Amino acid sequence: MAASSFTPLHDRILVKRVEEGESIRGGIIIPDSAKEKPQEGKVISVGKGKSNDEGKTFPLDVKAGDSILFGKYSGTEIKLDGEEFLIMREEEVLGILKK
Amino acid sequence: MAASSFTPLHDRILVKRVEEGESIRGGIIIPDSAKEKPQEGKVISVGKGKSNDEGKTFPLDVKAGDSILFGKYSGTEIKLDGEEFLIMREEEVLGILKK
Amino acid sequence: MAASSFTPLHDRILVKRVEEGESIRGGIIIPDSAKEKPQEGKVISVGKGKSNDEGKTFPLDVKAGDSILFGKYSGTEIKLDGEEFLIMREEEVLGILKK
Amino acid sequence: MAASSFTPLHDRILVKRVEEGESIRGGIIIPDSAKEKPQEGKVISVGKGKSNDEGKTFPLDVKAGDSILFGKYSGTEIKLDGEEFLIMREEEVLGILKK
Amino acid sequence: MAASSFTPLHDRILVKRVEEGESIRGGIIIPDSAKEKPQEGKVISVGKGKSNDEGKTFPLDVKAGDSILFGKYSGTEIKLDGEEFLIMREEEVLGILKK
Amino acid sequence: MAASSFTPLHDRILVKRVEEGESIRGGIIIPDSAKEKPQEGKVISVGKGKSNDEGKTFPLDVKAGDSILFGKYSGTEIKLDGEEFLIMREEEVLGILKK
Amino acid sequence: MAASSFTPLHDRILVKRVEEGESIRGGIIIPDSAKEKPQEGKVISVGKGKSNDEGKTFPLDVKAGDSILFGKYSGTEIKLDGEEFLIMREEEVLGILKK
Repeated sequence: MAASSFTPLHDRILVKRVEEGESIRGGIIIPDSAKEKPQEGKVISVGKGKSNDEGKTFPLDVKAGDSILFGKYSGTEIKLDGEEFLIMREEEVLGILKK
Repeated sequence: MAASSFTPLHDRILVKRVEEGESIRGGIIIPDSAKEKPQEGKVISVGKGKSNDEGKTFPLDVKAGDSILFGKYSGTEIKLDGEEFLIMREEEVLGILKK
Repeated sequence: MAASSFTPLHDRILVKRVEEGESIRGGIIIPDSAKEKPQEGKVISVGKGKSNDEGKTFPLDVKAGDSILFGKYSGTEIKLDGEEFLIMREEEVLGILKK
Repeated sequence: MAASSFTPLHDRILVKRVEEGESIRGGIIIPDSAKEKPQEGKVISVGKGKSNDEGKTFPLDVKAGDSILFGKYSGTEIKLDGEEFLIMREEEVLGILKK
Repeated sequence: MAASSFTPLHDRILVKRVEEGESIRGGIIIPDSAKEKPQEGKVISVGKGKSNDEGKTFPLDVKAGDSILFGKYSGTEIKLDGEEFLIMREEEVLGILKK
Repeated sequence: MAASSFTPLHDRILVKRVEEGESIRGGIIIPDSAKEKPQEGKVISVGKGKSNDEGKTFPLDVKAGDSILFGKYSGTEIKLDGEEFLIMREEEVLGILKK
Repeated sequence: MAASSFTPLHDRILVKRVEEGESIRGGIIIPDSAKEKPQEGKVISVGKGKSNDEGKTFPLDVKAGDSILFGKYSGTEIKLDGEEFLIMREEEVLGILKK
């Protein structure tokens, strides 16, 4: 049940959050649960696109490998092989980062 | 009233949850009601598809036999022959697992 | 005002709940009000279908005589000749049981 | 301001509730305000129909004189010449009774 | 800023409530604020109509001079030259009274 | 950042509230914050119009210089050069006053 | 992860708030958190536009470099290289300032 074996449906994409380094504020290490979850992620795989009312399918603009930003409460958390991922609709992606 | 005798309507699918092994946390067996229900399932049967405003019907992308992931609160629970199933719309399926 | 004299409008259907046998849990007979209402029913009659924006009407997929499953809170309860029925839209039908 | 002088607009219909006989439970006459309002009515007049986005108007399926059933909270109560009526959209009509 | 100088926009209409005679219940004159506002009005002026997505405009069915009924909470109250009027969309009009 | 340098987007319009004279009730001058804000305004500038799904743009019916009425809670308050304005969609305009 | 490396998706735009000078009321300097956030911003980059149901894309009216006004609660706050930005849909832009 690894991430490579998962295909998102329609306009959904599979995203791996980019974990930031241990955050320190004023010399105190903030434990994981207190840290705000990062809003950056890497696209692992994408659905085949959204279909219109005539059954025509349009491929997504977001591609596997893209670094993306998304809103704090975007997507559904899901575990694949014990690892956490997010599944969200392309429409929830705010934009793409060129690195 | 077995599952094989049930045909979901339109864009709905009949899903059997994949039950995970007995969960143990810190040596204490967690009884069934306290365990978070798995978000993985197997598609048992599918409707004939969604129709557009002109009456044209488009078959679903999800097929009987597919292993799928879905959101925690997806679908309607229903009993067929004493066995629990979920009926959900294809739109609630997050993606398909190749095993 | 018998059920046979009632014609549902448009995409609505008239449904008779299938009453289950008296339910017993741990030897105690559960009175009617405490039992969860069955989610199975028989279609008594159907409307002529839904019309699109051009006035074209599409007949329903559900037919009189079909055994159907529906969600717990589906439909509007109504009495015809002292007997209880449900009127629901075809869209609320989860699927059809072949018996 | 009698009912005959009122023309409902578009897809609305004017309905007269059918008042049921005085209800008695266990020998106690239940006064009017405690009785559940009947869900049956007679169509007094109907609008000319709903128009689509191109300005084409489609006549209603419900006709003046029809006996109809409707949901408990359907329609807007209105007084014409001191008499109570309901104005509702055709879409709120559950079905038609042949008597 | 008299009513004659006001042109409602699109599918809106300008309405003057028809004030009913002083209401008396059981011999006590009910002051104005305690009376339920009448749901009858006279159409003073109407907008040029609603436009569809192609820019085609369809004139309203309600005309200046029509006596109309409307729901209790319909429209926006507005003062023109110290006099109270209601501006509502044609869709909020329940029907027309022929007098 | 004067009002003349601002162009509303699409179907939005820039409006200057018409301030009414100091209001007096029963001889007591009501300070500004207690007065109900006037619902009349002057259109300062308008957007180029709303576009349909094919990219065709339709100019607005409301023009710069028009005196308009609008609902109590319409529009977004904004300051240009220290002066207060409202930006609202044309759809929020109730009608036009000829003076 | 600088702003120049970010491309908003579809009809979204990347906006840098224009910070106003330190605000003083009655001689007391108001610290940052108490100041109302400015509703003016500069467009840094824009998405390629919104697509209709046939897959045709329409470029945005707002361009990189535009000074814009937006509502108080518009957009999603996001940090790029430690600097705060807003990502919003073009539809949330109230208008453009010519300076």
